[in-house]
Amino acid sequence: MVAAVADVAIPACAAVGIAFALWQWFLVSKVKVSAYAATGNGHRNGGAIFRSEDDDEEDVGMGGDHDEEEEGDGVVAVARCAEIQSAISVGANSFLFTQYKYLAGFTVVFAVVIFLFLGSVHRFSTESRPCQYTAGRTCKPALANAVFSTASFLLGAATSVVSGYLGMRIATYANARTTLEARHGVGRAFSAAFRAGAVMGFLLASLGLLVLYLTIKAFALYYGDDWEGLYESVTGYGLGGSSMALFGRVGGGIYTKAADVGADLVGKVERNIPEDDPRNPAVIADNVGDNVGDIAGMGSDLFGSYAESTCAALFVASISSIGADHDFAAVCYPLLVSAAGLLVCLVTTLFATDLFKVKTVRGVAPALKMQLVVSTVLMTVAALVVTFAALPARFTLFDFGEVKQVRNWHLFLCVAIGLWAGLAIGFTTEYFTSNAYSPVRDVADSCRTGAATNVIFGLALGYKSVIVPVLAIAVSIYVGFTLASIYGIAIAALGMLSTVATGLAIDAYGPISDNAGGIAEMAGMSRRIRQRTDALDAAGNTTAAIGKGFAIGSAALVSLALFGAFVSRAGVADVNVLNPKVFVGLLVGAMLPYWFSAMTMKSVGSAALKMVEEVRRQFATIPGLMEGRATPDYASCVRISTDASLREMMPPGALVLLAPLIVGTFFGVRTLAGLLAGALVSGVQIAISASNSGGAWDNAKKYIEAGASDHAKALGPKGSDAHKAAVIVESGFNRAVLFY
Amino acid sequence: MVAAVADVAIPACAAVGIAFALWQWFLVSKVKVSAYAATGNGHRNGGAIFRSEDDDEEDVGMGGDHDEEEEGDGVVAVARCAEIQSAISVGANSFLFTQYKYLAGFTVVFAVVIFLFLGSVHRFSTESRPCQYTAGRTCKPALANAVFSTASFLLGAATSVVSGYLGMRIATYANARTTLEARHGVGRAFSAAFRAGAVMGFLLASLGLLVLYLTIKAFALYYGDDWEGLYESVTGYGLGGSSMALFGRVGGGIYTKAADVGADLVGKVERNIPEDDPRNPAVIADNVGDNVGDIAGMGSDLFGSYAESTCAALFVASISSIGADHDFAAVCYPLLVSAAGLLVCLVTTLFATDLFKVKTVRGVAPALKMQLVVSTVLMTVAALVVTFAALPARFTLFDFGEVKQVRNWHLFLCVAIGLWAGLAIGFTTEYFTSNAYSPVRDVADSCRTGAATNVIFGLALGYKSVIVPVLAIAVSIYVGFTLASIYGIAIAALGMLSTVATGLAIDAYGPISDNAGGIAEMAGMSRRIRQRTDALDAAGNTTAAIGKGFAIGSAALVSLALFGAFVSRAGVADVNVLNPKVFVGLLVGAMLPYWFSAMTMKSVGSAALKMVEEVRRQFATIPGLMEGRATPDYASCVRISTDASLREMMPPGALVLLAPLIVGTFFGVRTLAGLLAGALVSGVQIAISASNSGGAWDNAKKYIEAGASDHAKALGPKGSDAHKAAVIVESGFNRAVLFY
Repeated sequence: MVAAVADVAIPACAAVGIAFALWQWFLVSKVKVSAYAATGNGHRNGGAIFRSEDDDEEDVGMGGDHDEEEEGDGVVAVARCAEIQSAISVGANSFLFTQYKYLAGFTVVFAVVIFLFLGSVHRFSTESRPCQYTAGRTCKPALANAVFSTASFLLGAATSVVSGYLGMRIATYANARTTLEARHGVGRAFSAAFRAGAVMGFLLASLGLLVLYLTIKAFALYYGDDWEGLYESVTGYGLGGSSMALFGRVGGGIYTKAADVGADLVGKVERNIPEDDPRNPAVIADNVGDNVGDIAGMGSDLFGSYAESTCAALFVASISSIGADHDFAAVCYPLLVSAAGLLVCLVTTLFATDLFKVKTVRGVAPALKMQLVVSTVLMTVAALVVTFAALPARFTLFDFGEVKQVRNWHLFLCVAIGLWAGLAIGFTTEYFTSNAYSPVRDVADSCRTGAATNVIFGLALGYKSVIVPVLAIAVSIYVGFTLASIYGIAIAALGMLSTVATGLAIDAYGPISDNAGGIAEMAGMSRRIRQRTDALDAAGNTTAAIGKGFAIGSAALVSLALFGAFVSRAGVADVNVLNPKVFVGLLVGAMLPYWFSAMTMKSVGSAALKMVEEVRRQFATIPGLMEGRATPDYASCVRISTDASLREMMPPGALVLLAPLIVGTFFGVRTLAGLLAGALVSGVQIAISASNSGGAWDNAKKYIEAGASDHAKALGPKGSDAHKAAVIVESGFNRAVLFY
Repeated sequence: MVAAVADVAIPACAAVGIAFALWQWFLVSKVKVSAYAATGNGHRNGGAIFRSEDDDEEDVGMGGDHDEEEEGDGVVAVARCAEIQSAISVGANSFLFTQYKYLAGFTVVFAVVIFLFLGSVHRFSTESRPCQYTAGRTCKPALANAVFSTASFLLGAATSVVSGYLGMRIATYANARTTLEARHGVGRAFSAAFRAGAVMGFLLASLGLLVLYLTIKAFALYYGDDWEGLYESVTGYGLGGSSMALFGRVGGGIYTKAADVGADLVGKVERNIPEDDPRNPAVIADNVGDNVGDIAGMGSDLFGSYAESTCAALFVASISSIGADHDFAAVCYPLLVSAAGLLVCLVTTLFATDLFKVKTVRGVAPALKMQLVVSTVLMTVAALVVTFAALPARFTLFDFGEVKQVRNWHLFLCVAIGLWAGLAIGFTTEYFTSNAYSPVRDVADSCRTGAATNVIFGLALGYKSVIVPVLAIAVSIYVGFTLASIYGIAIAALGMLSTVATGLAIDAYGPISDNAGGIAEMAGMSRRIRQRTDALDAAGNTTAAIGKGFAIGSAALVSLALFGAFVSRAGVADVNVLNPKVFVGLLVGAMLPYWFSAMTMKSVGSAALKMVEEVRRQFATIPGLMEGRATPDYASCVRISTDASLREMMPPGALVLLAPLIVGTFFGVRTLAGLLAGALVSGVQIAISASNSGGAWDNAKKYIEAGASDHAKALGPKGSDAHKAAVIVESGFNRAVLFY
């Protein structure tokens, strides 16, 4: 492929992706929420949010549905939806802006450190020097590398923040619209939520690709011939993305879990009011949490992995024979794969929204599953085309010393193995977290004997669910490394992330549906609507777990690629497990995820305690609150979650950043290498099992609530002992305890 | 030291240990239970076990205590204690015998496999061959090695089983005696329970040492000069011990957890009757479980680690320069350390039973803590003496190729670091699981907001509690390996286990006190007695967790020593983490403990479900059971636990045995090395955190129940919401979910 084709294809695909995202946004915007929606004063003046008293009795028979629908879902309800949406949006905005203020400070400090560190390696030299890897060429001075690396770091951080923010905006824009569409059927509600998810997915993937491409082009104006320097400075982009991801996930995670636990414990367990009941003071905070944690946080997480793996692959390619030959299209192979992925995801999205429309509640889960299959199959074909078009038949990798001959179809296999490993992770996650299969049903069953057996079964399910994903990741690593060493692992990670637009769409669909259900409840919509949004939400719990699975799997591959790059660059020829320094690092490294979890769980626990006490206080002191005659003080709960999460995200973040630094400084590079490997292999297990236990508990509860089968009916109805046990555990765990 | 001294010292110390154990047994036996105790018919005819109705109201004020004591603790109560004890003993006996029948089959098969494998390496050759490590010498034929290895394997297995069985016998002998001694004060009850623990500790440590010593002496009659062959065949002893440990722990673990969960969930949560209430049909099974799981299982576990580390050290020593010089005393250094440990532990025991008698409830925990400190300090001195007496000033290790010069004080440091790392683990465990410190109090506090926050805090506590133990183990590994390579690690493990008699005494004290409390409740003893046994039990939860901590820590060291020996013998010069085969092994290995846990947890869950249903069935179908007018069918609950645990111990056992075999066969020795390392570093974390979370939950519950401080009173009393939350979580988790 000539360079010009790449120069057209990459920005064009990104542009198409952005255009598609905007079109989806436009389609979502056609649902009119209310004339009042724009005023945004629902947050401060929540007077109309709570339901009128005549709606209070929720559990009427199915026969009364039609009347209810007339009564509950009219103009008043629409106005209520608008107000609630506005309150959620205001809360999410305020949290993110506060968080970004903190992050800006951190980023500036980190940027200065990077600049000083990279600059000082060669004493801020302004003279050109011989290239490190490409013998005989002259490379740009160290100072330039420091400047450009810092710039790309800032660009990566900014892109991460913008992507997360835009995702939150569309999610808080679409949640009430999904609720309103549910009046016209589950299919239209599904489309609204899924399109909104697609907006997020395509914006993030396209922006990530475009900004990176433009960065390369802009830097090339200065670097010219010096590709080694160029792609080395571009790696800052990946670092910027992933450092934002860390805080985004932790801060958002603590927020959403604390609010969720706080709301459920008092509301559902003590006061026996439904989830998302407007009388619950923490209910707005809970819904805000979904948007800042599972949307914005997850977005920056996946962006971080995407940026890291692309940059790692680009750099390795730049010092390979294709880099030496200045074959731009071949070096840009990772970008071309992502660009092709955008087109594949675009077609895949149409399968869900246009080609095979969802018509019934039962159609939701298969439609989402089809997304996974279609995108994987199409992407396999696309990867084949891109590989043979972009890469020369054979080329040589110089992986920091190790010379490796590779053929272009080797790289195709790397993309494919990552892609299909992702599908395996997705299917396993679905099997273990969807209430269509026996694992979740067994967990639901165990609720008959109380919360404790529910805990046992849920934890066991999570532990069991790591087996297949870990084997899939192991195979990817093995194939990737054997075929193309570290480059192969980075490409396998990219393969897993090549369908990230679709992955994020189905992932973001989850919290949007969750919010939609909450809004339906708060606005006092009819039971029928609530059933529809509940069905969407149950599928969303599964897809959210699938999204986490992808994120964990790709993060594992990316980490390994970076780890390999680090070890090789540090000149450690081998990291022998039998070396006591390495083994000790391994052992202590395997402990770090536990330490990290202890910190975040303690944070969630403390924040949830504060939330519980605030909610109890309000129920105790605001007269008429339980009867629905008074409005709770939503804002104080939002404030508690915001303050707690921002304060509490610092120590875990510091652990992740400082542990390698301290170990590396005091115990040397071998112990550090062991530490990183140990943390990686141990963290993968905790993360996957926690994510799947959480999803399973949530859906076991929903399975009992929905009562869609004889088995489920035997365990229900709402308020039965089995249901209570499910709620107790779910509210404690789901996304609370185990919230990687 | 001349060989003769070792030949006197080792058996003499073992004999002293056994004599001391018998003396302690004699002291315990002075407490007379009842004339009926020997008839042992309590199990079949439980008619008199349940309390008379007038005792039913438990929560009377403190003022009524004296009358109650007169009323409840008389001759009738003693007879009841005897019957209950007999029922527990019959249940435990029957379980262990059934289990041993299964194990006998397994052992025979395994023994044949070992014989065939070792024999076939040199085609069952009956000809002498040149030694492998000791150049220029002639060693015995392969067939002899196969025969003797198989024999020592069988001896190890038998010793493990006998030790576990004797421990169970003394525990079921002492439990009712502890209850009865509680009538005369907490001090005497403590002495009874602690002496019984000491019987177990000293019998196990002495028997383990004596049988091993005699095995060496007997084998030497044939092997003569060939020390390499001699000590190589002796390693079978370690393998025999640890393979029994695997099934002992898993089978006993499933038994005790299933019974515990089953009994608590229906009894405490649903029926609102106290723990160990005789109306609960699962109550005997619960008490049996403590004896077969936490006594017999724990005993074989520690015996396994002890035997493995001693044999590993002996073999490495035999191929070192001291082996080549035929310096028997120096080669037997590991045995001499253990022998000295017996004397140290003997003195230490007197501190608790004679020198500083426990007089009040508050004195229990400090007395147990003092055991740890005294034994560690004394052992440090003893190790110094033994080291300089037994070892030459300097000698050379040939660790499978690597030549290493060591000095005798290096080995002293190895013993000392293991010993003090054990103390650090013990203290950390105490801090995190005793209700005297803030972690458990925080967990108790979190019960105010329900079971879910209790779960969060308890898990976070467990995760946090791994930090110090892992660092302690890491330091031991580092010091041990740096000073004396694999030999150093084995010696550090032995150092940690050198005070195993004391460690086991305080560990076994836990379940004995637990049983004593149960018997007091079932026999309808007065509230005062129950308070005393509760205080003993709370301390026992902590010491049981400490015992587990020691077991895990030493197991980690032993595994590493064996792993190192394996890798070196397999001729793998380096196990490079960057090699994809190794890394994949590492990743999959880190997954294995999760898989194993999933299996065992699922087993506990299923068994507990069956137990719960049986208990509910009995409450529903036996008229007058709740009112105490009818006897539950204890035997059917015992049967359920027995059947479930024996059936369910097979799959996890098979996983542990087969995974390395399969991986090694199909993926080669590098992947296998990675697998073992991954499983080791990941398993340590899960094991420690699970053990400590469990202990903490149990003691948080006890803290609320005891109401000994203002803070605790605010959370209580029994039956309060906070207490219920504590019970729900504790019954689910403690020793159930997380039961490595």
